[in-house]
This record gives sequence, C-alpha cells and structure tokens, in this order.
Amino acid sequence: MSSFLFLQISSLHKHISDIVEVAAMCGVNIVCFQEAWTMPFAFCTREKLPWTEFAESAEDGITTKFCQELAKKHNMVIVSPILERDSVHGDTLWNTAVIISNTGAVMGKTRKNHIPRVGDFNESSYYMEGNTGHRVFQTAFGRIAVNICYGRHHPLNWLMYSVNGAEIIFNPSATIGELSESLWPIEARNAAIANHCFTCSINRVGTEHFKNEFTSGDGKKAHHDFGHFYGSSYVSAPDGSRSPGLSRVSDGLLVAEMDLNLCRQTSDKWNFKMTGRYEMYADELTKATQMDFKPNIVQE
Amino acid sequence: MSSFLFLQISSLHKHISDIVEVAAMCGVNIVCFQEAWTMPFAFCTREKLPWTEFAESAEDGITTKFCQELAKKHNMVIVSPILERDSVHGDTLWNTAVIISNTGAVMGKTRKNHIPRVGDFNESSYYMEGNTGHRVFQTAFGRIAVNICYGRHHPLNWLMYSVNGAEIIFNPSATIGELSESLWPIEARNAAIANHCFTCSINRVGTEHFKNEFTSGDGKKAHHDFGHFYGSSYVSAPDGSRSPGLSRVSDGLLVAEMDLNLCRQTSDKWNFKMTGRYEMYADELTKATQMDFKPNIVQE
Repeated sequence: MSSFLFLQISSLHKHISDIVEVAAMCGVNIVCFQEAWTMPFAFCTREKLPWTEFAESAEDGITTKFCQELAKKHNMVIVSPILERDSVHGDTLWNTAVIISNTGAVMGKTRKNHIPRVGDFNESSYYMEGNTGHRVFQTAFGRIAVNICYGRHHPLNWLMYSVNGAEIIFNPSATIGELSESLWPIEARNAAIANHCFTCSINRVGTEHFKNEFTSGDGKKAHHDFGHFYGSSYVSAPDGSRSPGLSRVSDGLLVAEMDLNLCRQTSDKWNFKMTGRYEMYADELTKATQMDFKPNIVQE
Repeated sequence: MSSFLFLQISSLHKHISDIVEVAAMCGVNIVCFQEAWTMPFAFCTREKLPWTEFAESAEDGITTKFCQELAKKHNMVIVSPILERDSVHGDTLWNTAVIISNTGAVMGKTRKNHIPRVGDFNESSYYMEGNTGHRVFQTAFGRIAVNICYGRHHPLNWLMYSVNGAEIIFNPSATIGELSESLWPIEARNAAIANHCFTCSINRVGTEHFKNEFTSGDGKKAHHDFGHFYGSSYVSAPDGSRSPGLSRVSDGLLVAEMDLNLCRQTSDKWNFKMTGRYEMYADELTKATQMDFKPNIVQE
C-alpha cells in the first residue's frame, strides 16, 4: 500500500472512529458503514490503479483490525463493507462486508451477490458476483445479514436472507441521484414489508472528483466526477413504517431503536412465508432459466 | 341464482357499464375492475350461503357474457375478476380473473395464486390457491397479467408474471385500511421497479354491512362490518414514478396513458433479469423447502 493510500485510509479510520464514539454514547449495539467505506467509489474511472490498492484482507487487513479494536472498546457489532483482496484464491477482489462481533472477533464475511452493469457502475470490471450465498450472522444483538448495494434491486436477494433467519438486513450502498434516487425510498421499505424484518438503507454522501477525466457512455463529454451520492439513509420496519432520512448533502449517524419482536409478531399475523408457495416458484424459476424456456403467453 | 342475487349482479353490471362508457369516451384500451366485483366481499362472515351463489362460470357466466358485449361495443380489453364456479372440476370455487379480448372473445382466465390467512380475510374457507400459474395475455394493446389482491405481498408472484413477458400487471384488490393501507403505496410500486413493467393497483371503496353479526378473532365484540375499503387505486411505472391515487371514499375511474416502450427501455438500462442469478435462487429455494433445511446461520 502506498503511503498516499495509507494516509487516506487512516484519515477515514479516524473519521469513522469519531462517529462510532458518538454512536457508543447513544448506546448503539450494531453499526454498519457505507459500501467500500475506506475508499473513493472510483470504479467509474475504469482505472485499476491506484484503486485496487485499497483492497484488503477481510480476515486480517488493517481495516478489519481497526474495526476489531473499535468493536471491543464499545461492545458493538460492526459491519464493515470493504474492497476485499482474497490472496488465498489468486488475489481476486470482492465487494465484501466483514462482520465483527462485539467481542472483537471476526465472525465472517459476506459478499455482494449482484453486480451492476449500469451507467458508470462499471463494477463488473473489478470483482465478480459473490459466492458466499445468503449467510445470516447470529450476533449478541440479533440475527443480521448484509445485502450490499445493487442487491437491493433484487427481491429474491432480500428473501433468501430472510429465509435464513435475518431480523435486520443492512444495505450498505454507494449510489447517485440521477440513477436511483426515485427508487431509493421504495425498495428497502418493500423488502421490510415482504420479509417481516427490519432493513437499513445506508448511502454514501457527497460528490467525488477524480484526477483523470472519464466518459460515461452517455454521449456526453469526458468529466471528472461521478454524480452526487445522495445519502438519505433510513430504516424500515416490518409494519411498513420508516424513519426519517439522513441528509442528502452531509455525513450523518442515524440511530434507530428496533424491537426485534416486531419481526415475529408481524410474521405471526401475516406469514407471507407460509403462503409463499416456494416449491412452485423454485420449479418455475428452474424452468425459466432453461434454454428451451417458452414464456406462458396466451394468444387470442 | 336467487332473484335477489340476480338483482344485485344486474345493478352492478349497470353501474360498471356506465363507468366503462366514460372510459370509452376517454379512449381507454384496457380496463380492469376490482376483485370479485359482482359481489360484496362477504368472506369475513364465514357464511357459505348466500355468498357462494355469486360464483359463475368464467367461460359463459352472465358476467362474462355481459363483459363480452361491453368489450366488443367499445373495442376494449376487459379484465373481469369474479368468484368462479368450476363445474368441470367438482363445482370448485376459485378467485379468478377473466380476460376478454377487444374482439369480445374470452381469451382465458387466471386464478389468484396466494390466499390470505389474516384477520377477517377467511378466504381459504371459500377457495384454494390458484392452479393457473403465471399466464400472460397477449392482447391487441400489450401483454397483460393479473396478480389478484393478496398476491401483491409476494415479490415472486410479480416476478414470474414479468418473466413470462408481462408489460402491465393488474392487481385487482379488496383490502381494508387497518390491515394494509400502510403497505399499499409501496408494494406494487416496488414491483414496477423490480420488474421493469407497469403495475395497476385497484382497490374496492366503501364500507360493507352484513345482516348477521360476526367476530373477527381479535377479542372484540361481534359486529356487522368488515372495515373500510380504502380505494386509493393508482398506477406505477417502471421508472418508479406513479400516478396520483383515486379517492379513498368514493368510486372512481383512473385513466392512465402508458408508453409500453418504457418497459424495454428501462430493462435495457438496468436489466435486473440479466443480473438476477435465477439459477442460484431456484436452487436455494428448492433447498429451503426441504424438511431437513438448515438455515445458513453463522455463530461466533
């Protein structure tokens, strides 16, 4: 890691440390940071260097070590989404969230299941679709899962975390206004309703400028920024209610108190899983992925 | 059919005929009525009679015949959700939508896939989960599908209609304020986003009173009404935008102009189906329905 990158990561560590200090004062049990929180969201540039240098080991990188200290100090579970370098498997990169127990132990990691191919989100040039399935982490404060960024557009992704028992599904994101702001208040809130769980929508804030100009495949001239990350983080509950959103222009800490009993209470009332007919859908989905699939279209 | 019931159905035919007349003046191509539109939503009573007498043949019942005339007269596709009596299969009842072509021909029928077991929605006493899968109807004005009422809570239901090619998914409903009003603006709108299609949320309006008192399994005294059907019908587009809602207290006709090109344009931009990883989900769902399924829970 170059000294320049080290300086940038260290500054972000310091910044987040201050925020977590406030969270601790508020009695927070579980904190989740934004997607790829230790780096600029530089994938729009399509440059590999220096950005891939931000990738770290999920198990013992400097950011995970930093979070372990923080977790232990504050008796807090930390969800730390980073760019992961997996040296065991050929130095592959992944978009990964590391789950750190309130004891300071690394509980494990979970990877982004769906990778965008839209606009400046050229992420598929940097890492592949996750291979960790739909793990749920039994923390001291509830069963949590992490649906990273673009995965929020896929209702099945939310569903499988819920089928595995998640009470809270975090959605650490980095997304810009022009692309997704009209969808942002709907998708995670629907997921909370559909899955009888809490969802936490977390977005980056601000506009990031890059030294080298790049084009966006939209016929416009080359430029130096990606668009505005609109923040607006919020929390949704199983009953469809939601918290106010954080600012769309400045950093913030959203503290939400969740009564996890509401998950089972809502489920016992509605029970979408009991009426979900998943055998039928497993069968229909299997057929729909076959080469010889013929859509069921009725003609006159 | 008793003369009393005949009178009630005929009055509703007259009423809807007047509304469709206005729709025709507006140039409407496809109209969809509310769920079980020819009858009171009487399932809360748990009485079989006289309510089951409202059930008709989907193919040649008086309501289908009425709709055929109307469709032909106005060159309009009609989606007519009724209580169906299937005499070919042992006089079973179904919650069914009949699709009538603008030529007046019956294109086919599609049944409610998910049946609620919540509050006063005792519908599972009257009919079973539909067995018509996720048919899409290629009409002269677009490919349409019908997700009846409670099916809107199940993202997979919307998905499969979309996988089969639906450009517009109608959601004829009869649902009351206390139960679902907080979810109503979210679910169908999310379905439009997630599936790159239009969705039409249609709800009954008003409060229906029943002669015989009934209890609701909520510890309260017996009563004569079901609660208020809150109307608020609206249309959602693939880009996440939506129309205003109709009144929550009076009947209405919502006319929406949809550019169906927006479905493919949105899909070509985002393409959630390409990044959907349905093979993985078919496999995970299959496993999740097995008796020996063990949720993927990571312990410290």
